[in-house]
Amino acid sequence: MKELGYYNGRIGELSEMTVPMNDRACWFGDGVYDAEMVRNRRLFALDEHVDRFFRSAAALRIVMPVTKEELKKLLNELVQKTESGNLFAYYQVTRGGGPRNHVFPEGPGHLWVTLTPREVNEGKTPVDAVTAEDTRFFHCDIKTINLIPSVMASQKAKEAGCHECILYRPGGRITECSHSNIHILKDGVLRTAPTDHLILPGIARARMIGICGELQIPVDETPFSITDLMQADEVIATSSSNLCVRIKTVDGQAVGMKAPELYEAIRSAVLAQYYRETDIPAAR
Amino acid sequence: MKELGYYNGRIGELSEMTVPMNDRACWFGDGVYDAEMVRNRRLFALDEHVDRFFRSAAALRIVMPVTKEELKKLLNELVQKTESGNLFAYYQVTRGGGPRNHVFPEGPGHLWVTLTPREVNEGKTPVDAVTAEDTRFFHCDIKTINLIPSVMASQKAKEAGCHECILYRPGGRITECSHSNIHILKDGVLRTAPTDHLILPGIARARMIGICGELQIPVDETPFSITDLMQADEVIATSSSNLCVRIKTVDGQAVGMKAPELYEAIRSAVLAQYYRETDIPAAR
Repeated sequence: MKELGYYNGRIGELSEMTVPMNDRACWFGDGVYDAEMVRNRRLFALDEHVDRFFRSAAALRIVMPVTKEELKKLLNELVQKTESGNLFAYYQVTRGGGPRNHVFPEGPGHLWVTLTPREVNEGKTPVDAVTAEDTRFFHCDIKTINLIPSVMASQKAKEAGCHECILYRPGGRITECSHSNIHILKDGVLRTAPTDHLILPGIARARMIGICGELQIPVDETPFSITDLMQADEVIATSSSNLCVRIKTVDGQAVGMKAPELYEAIRSAVLAQYYRETDIPAAR
Repeated sequence: MKELGYYNGRIGELSEMTVPMNDRACWFGDGVYDAEMVRNRRLFALDEHVDRFFRSAAALRIVMPVTKEELKKLLNELVQKTESGNLFAYYQVTRGGGPRNHVFPEGPGHLWVTLTPREVNEGKTPVDAVTAEDTRFFHCDIKTINLIPSVMASQKAKEAGCHECILYRPGGRITECSHSNIHILKDGVLRTAPTDHLILPGIARARMIGICGELQIPVDETPFSITDLMQADEVIATSSSNLCVRIKTVDGQAVGMKAPELYEAIRSAVLAQYYRETDIPAAR
């Protein structure tokens, strides 16, 4: 298959797959998701993503239809069925189906998976960003499919010819981007927002913090403002498919680009870890 | 048909209807909806609901696949196809389909309709309510299908054996309920939140305000607090299927029920208007 779709046990070409109209995704966006890169048919950081996926479901009291081990086995089986072995693996669980009623239905949720060809962004080319006020709900730590504000912010970025849209709350605190976490380097320190209810605890974020530890770069998990960002030495966005991306302008103003060696040390270590963990094991 | 489902021109029993997995409802909840009661196959307050539906779509730049007149014609045709003529008519438009990508696809949205049997709540029985902090996004004036917080609040109400969950922002301002607007009567005045970005401009709310005008009951559209609500003479919830409902307890504490004649004057006028506009026209 070129692009695989899976829904509650059915498998097919994604473009031909259908789902019941009564799935609660359709009426309420009542579900959570997770996603990661796949290279050489190996799912990157699978344990961490599946752990977060189950945490998201638990936060909304969605009953998982599989165990963690069953999900990992399923994903590993599905990535054998596509033409390409380099993929974006996306999976979500929705709170079942039935009559449209806000209150919960009984029973386990519905499991969805899509596998679509993708290559990781190596982060070698600096990108541009815009900003927008963060008007999202106060559950941004849960990876839900209630994503309209992120859709609108992404569209704003695209129409400005930019890679990402950086979000700030009233008062100027930078939270994250429409689909990335954001960080700054200043005077040799990596500054990143704490993982409260205003941001998603990104796996790429956690991996980068770990790498900073290895590289002896101090990490400061306190909120930062637009002003801090505009005065930073480097501005870095991270996500599961854009592991470590450097931002060179924000709303048309030049930012960062003042600590190229430090940025490159982090970027190359992030990518090296990704390639190492997704290499094909040598035959014994 | 018992329950009708419509999706982009296809019609069938709702429980058997399917939609493409790639519709953006499924990944982003990227759509808006509206809904109203139907009696004697007559759609109540159709013009107002369709106007709001188009305003919601425009606010998110979703391209409507039909004109207002085409939609009204379609809905009037569909309500001829069900066994019952007393229904809940629900319709939504989603931002098309295609590869999962936050940025907008080209072209018109996808139109969905469901018709399910329902009778209006006449509001004769007072109900109980709970409260919860309003943690929703700041686009509550747009009737989107990003409804997880309303789902969680409704479930809280149900588990407490209550009809509704009343939402308040930090500081104590009452906004609305999980799927109703809320109002208080105090010293002969109807107090209701202004239609800013924190509440949905309810059609039932607007109708009730109009009726208060006819009944010479002053209306004060300023925000009110939990304290105001607990001390009110009456607490009233309104929605399209629960046109005018009296609340008798909040979080287990007795509220309202102190102006029964005034409440009954409003309730009976609201219901009379509903029955009048959905009566079968007399043969000429």
